[in-house]
Amino acid sequence: MTAQNFNAACVALVHRLADTSGEIVLHHFRTSLRVDAKADETGSPVTIADRDAETAMSDIIRAAFPDHGFIGEEHGGHNQNAEWVWVLDPIDGTQSFINGVPLFGTLIGLLRNGVPWLGCINHPALSQRWIGGGGAPTTMNGAPVRTRACADIAKATVYATGPEYLRTNEAAAFERLAQASKRRRYGGTDCFHYAMVASGWTDMACEARLALHDFAAVVPVILNAGGTVTDWNGRPLTRGSTGHILAAGDAGVHAQALKALAWSG
Amino acid sequence: MTAQNFNAACVALVHRLADTSGEIVLHHFRTSLRVDAKADETGSPVTIADRDAETAMSDIIRAAFPDHGFIGEEHGGHNQNAEWVWVLDPIDGTQSFINGVPLFGTLIGLLRNGVPWLGCINHPALSQRWIGGGGAPTTMNGAPVRTRACADIAKATVYATGPEYLRTNEAAAFERLAQASKRRRYGGTDCFHYAMVASGWTDMACEARLALHDFAAVVPVILNAGGTVTDWNGRPLTRGSTGHILAAGDAGVHAQALKALAWSG
Repeated sequence: MTAQNFNAACVALVHRLADTSGEIVLHHFRTSLRVDAKADETGSPVTIADRDAETAMSDIIRAAFPDHGFIGEEHGGHNQNAEWVWVLDPIDGTQSFINGVPLFGTLIGLLRNGVPWLGCINHPALSQRWIGGGGAPTTMNGAPVRTRACADIAKATVYATGPEYLRTNEAAAFERLAQASKRRRYGGTDCFHYAMVASGWTDMACEARLALHDFAAVVPVILNAGGTVTDWNGRPLTRGSTGHILAAGDAGVHAQALKALAWSG
Repeated sequence: MTAQNFNAACVALVHRLADTSGEIVLHHFRTSLRVDAKADETGSPVTIADRDAETAMSDIIRAAFPDHGFIGEEHGGHNQNAEWVWVLDPIDGTQSFINGVPLFGTLIGLLRNGVPWLGCINHPALSQRWIGGGGAPTTMNGAPVRTRACADIAKATVYATGPEYLRTNEAAAFERLAQASKRRRYGGTDCFHYAMVASGWTDMACEARLALHDFAAVVPVILNAGGTVTDWNGRPLTRGSTGHILAAGDAGVHAQALKALAWSG
C-alpha cells in the first residue's frame, strides 16, 4: 500500500469506527442504564454503551489492520508495541453521558511509534465529527476548521473540566493560568473543549492527568487545525506523557500560558 | 376568551417566540460577533443576537397581548405591574453561546400576579424545547417528560454552574449540599440543568442569585414535570425572590437538600 493509500485507508477506518460506535452509544443515551462502578481505583462509572462500543471498534480494527496494536479504555489492549497503535475511548465524558448532556464524545486516535498521528473527536449526540492528522488538515463534518488568533492571554478564555479534578499543586498552577486569562470556564466534557479550540470558538483548554486514551486523539486534531498542544512543561504529548494538557489556538498565547502555569510537576 | 382558549393562545405564542428567537440566535452562533461589555455592573457580555432576539419577541408579545406586561433581560420592560407579565432571557448562557457550546438557551416565562405560570426552555442549537405550565404537563418537543425518583440524596447528582459564581456563605452552603450528594457537576449553562432535571436525566440543580429572567421560565417546567423547585429556604419562587434556586426531581431529595444547605441568607 502506498503511503497515500494507507492514509486514506486509516481515515476511512476512523469514519467506520465513529459511525459504528456512535450508533451504539446513542442507542443508550438518555435511557435508564445500569451504571457500574469500574473495577479500578477511580471508581468512575462505566456503562454497557462504553463496553459494547469499544468491542465493536476493536473488532473492526483487527479485521482491517491485523498487525496494528490497540489500546482501549475498557478492555485493555493487544499488540501494544506495534508501530501503529489505535487508542480508543468510547465515551469521554461518561458523567455527561449518564446525565443526559450531549457533550460526551468518542475519541479515536492512531499512534505511530508512540506519537499521536491521526485523531478523531466524534460527538454523536451533536452530529459533529472532528478529524485531523494523517497528512490532512483538521475538518469538522468535512469542512476545514482553524484555530483563532488571540493577541494576548489577557484576552483569552480557558476551559477546564473543573477544579475538583485537580490536586493541590495542579490547582495552584491552573489558578495562575486562570488569573492571567480573561476568563475561565468549567464544563462537563474534556474532549469537546479541544474541539472548541480546534474550531476557533474558544482560546484554550487545560487539563491534568488525562489518560492516553483521553489525549491521543485530541493532539492531531489541535495541531492540524493550526493550534499548539503540549504538556504543562511545553513538551510534545506522546505515549509516556503524564497527561497534563495545555492546548491553545494561538502559539503566542500558548507560550504565555506555559509561563503562567510555571509548572514544576 | 375562555380560560382554555387563553391557555392555548399563550402556549401558541410561546412557540412563536421560541421559533423567532431561535432563528435569530442561531444565525449568530459560531460566527465572529462583537461582544460588548454590558453597561451594568455585572460586565457580562451581550451580543447583537441577544438584543435582536429580545426586540423581536417583545414586538410579538405587544401585538398579541397589548395589555400584558413584559420584562426583558436587555431592554428593561413595560407595563410590569399587569396581571400577566412575560419575562424573557434571549440567551441564557451567553458564555456558552460565545464559545460555541450548544447548551445556551432562550427562556420564556409568563407570570400571573408575580407567580411563574407558564415556562419554556428552548435550546435552538440542540433543537430541543421544553414547555410546562398553563394547565398542561411539561413536554420536550411535544413528548411528556417526568422527573425521576431518587431514594436518597446520597445517591443524587447535583448540577451547578460553578463555584466561582458563589459568595463565601453561598459556597459554604453549596459545599454542604455537594458533600451530602453522591456527585457534583459543574457545567456551562444554568437553564439546561433545569431541563435535565425536568426530563429525569439528573437529580438536582442549584444556583445562587439568579435573576427573575433566569428562573421565571424554569419554575413551571420543573413543577409540571413532577419536580420540586423553591428558594434555598424552601419558599416558592416568585417575582421578589432572591434567586437562590434549588430544583430536584424527587420531593424527598429536595427536602434533604434543603436541610444540607442549612441556608440562613
